[in-house]
Amino acid sequence: MSKRYQLVGIGNAMVDVLAHADDAFLADNGVEKGIMQLIDRERGVELYGKVGPATEISGGSAANTIAGFAHLGGRAAYVGKVKDDQLGAIFAHDLRAQGVTYEVPLAPAGHKQETGRCIVLVTPDGERSMNTYLGVTEHLAPSDIDEAMMENAEWIFLEGYRFDGPESHEAFAKAIAAVKRGGGRVALTLSDPFCIERHRDAFAAMLKADVDLLFANQSELLSMYDTDDLDTALAAASAEVETVVCTAHEHGAHVVRGPMRFHCPAVPTKVVDATGAGDLFAGAFLWGLVEDFDLETCGMMGNIAASEVISHIGARPETDLKARFRDFGLKV
Amino acid sequence: MSKRYQLVGIGNAMVDVLAHADDAFLADNGVEKGIMQLIDRERGVELYGKVGPATEISGGSAANTIAGFAHLGGRAAYVGKVKDDQLGAIFAHDLRAQGVTYEVPLAPAGHKQETGRCIVLVTPDGERSMNTYLGVTEHLAPSDIDEAMMENAEWIFLEGYRFDGPESHEAFAKAIAAVKRGGGRVALTLSDPFCIERHRDAFAAMLKADVDLLFANQSELLSMYDTDDLDTALAAASAEVETVVCTAHEHGAHVVRGPMRFHCPAVPTKVVDATGAGDLFAGAFLWGLVEDFDLETCGMMGNIAASEVISHIGARPETDLKARFRDFGLKV
Repeated sequence: MSKRYQLVGIGNAMVDVLAHADDAFLADNGVEKGIMQLIDRERGVELYGKVGPATEISGGSAANTIAGFAHLGGRAAYVGKVKDDQLGAIFAHDLRAQGVTYEVPLAPAGHKQETGRCIVLVTPDGERSMNTYLGVTEHLAPSDIDEAMMENAEWIFLEGYRFDGPESHEAFAKAIAAVKRGGGRVALTLSDPFCIERHRDAFAAMLKADVDLLFANQSELLSMYDTDDLDTALAAASAEVETVVCTAHEHGAHVVRGPMRFHCPAVPTKVVDATGAGDLFAGAFLWGLVEDFDLETCGMMGNIAASEVISHIGARPETDLKARFRDFGLKV
Repeated sequence: MSKRYQLVGIGNAMVDVLAHADDAFLADNGVEKGIMQLIDRERGVELYGKVGPATEISGGSAANTIAGFAHLGGRAAYVGKVKDDQLGAIFAHDLRAQGVTYEVPLAPAGHKQETGRCIVLVTPDGERSMNTYLGVTEHLAPSDIDEAMMENAEWIFLEGYRFDGPESHEAFAKAIAAVKRGGGRVALTLSDPFCIERHRDAFAAMLKADVDLLFANQSELLSMYDTDDLDTALAAASAEVETVVCTAHEHGAHVVRGPMRFHCPAVPTKVVDATGAGDLFAGAFLWGLVEDFDLETCGMMGNIAASEVISHIGARPETDLKARFRDFGLKV
């Protein structure tokens, strides 16, 4: 019997504020290149005042994954908190317009924080340096987790970034218990090496006990398993998690499941804005998985989806991903 | 003695909500193709609920013109009203980040309307159908016109769309009187044939008495002078206005000043999103004018700038327009 949701994502609900900047601007303003750094509201206002004209577009790592999954036709829901303000309305609209169920109660208009936003500075090399003001999304509470929704999900997808926040670990635990109760499974993305440093013990416990599918890039996996050697890290992860997917930028992705290990080459693409590459990889990979494609095809789908999203500004698909899959000979 | 501002624009302050749609969607939802239609807040909410994922980017016709002018290095200010809300903050940021002086008092957070927005539906042919909720921008009042600023302007640029609104004609009259007192000059864009129908008498009076430079496209000019013949319309306009510039989409622009008339061919471009073509034409033309380039060069600059802005989503320049001018052999 198929479940109501094939995938439910839980993550930080963010609107991206995309602006171009050069390396000198990053250096002058203390922005570390290529990573996600948390900033408070004051720093957000200061930085925003210095960047050039910007474009606003819905983002959030797991939300991008879910949007990509729904774009492919998957039945999906999203859990993440926005406020009853204009950016919150934009975020909710863009998910629902993609066919995603999104029913998390809004933080009230009187909340002292605002809807989260991420100032994404895109350098000429297409790399992005993210400056995240979490705002109300940090306050996702266990009460925001709808247990019936989780019980009705084939998979939940947990965003590592969402481990920041006062009640997040408890909220995740509630979601995991509910999905497992319903016979569903748990995917996790580590999100970021610095995020791992902040929550190493929580990640380690979850990987051992709960996670069925892990997404990470190379630096995250090396950080998580405290090694300089990718094979060592892959082996360590694979000992704990059924399926391990390690993305490697222009080198594609490594997939390990038990004794099986293979590599999926990336699709060569001119990088305009790398924002969302890993997110869309995960969304397409998960869609392949729930649609019963083999793992190699899932990896290929992930790479094709990532190549689409890095070819333009913004972290969600703008062209028909299924048509792209067919261009590569996939029967979808 | 040079004035503090080379150009001050007055118009509707809008954030554009850009979404893709096909012709069937326009038909099903009663959206008239290729024009600007005014909608109320309720209709805006309804339409927004139906469109797909969108991107938010600062717009507004005269604001785009001013942004392009400032991008080229011109000293510019903008007058248009936003609210103390998130979209208002986005609008203000994007103008100031481009170097534009923007000091109009915000409508207070308690105002029952919000910052104006325009749902721009971009069809596969690159044509845009605009659905404008004016919000607080309709309430620009004479008290928002800083007479000292107008007296300190070489040119003011008036947006036809801004003729809608309870106090707009009075606000324009105040601005025109102040700029003329300071020895400055008045440019007007007719904006839209339906806008002309709504305000024909006001436009006619202003063209006769006040306007030194008119921007219009062909359908606007024909509508204004109630004729089917472009030569007749150009002659009628030229009898009233010193310099008349008539843009003609892929056919470039016609410029008439007294006995002189010439044509500036367009720059062939793949149209991605036509939003802002006329606005950027005007911004670049005016920049050429205040920098003492001859009229033919001004027209060429306008066409080059228009070709840049239609080659991407969004109505403001994203690449260095001066570098483009140099690519075409212009000495800037």
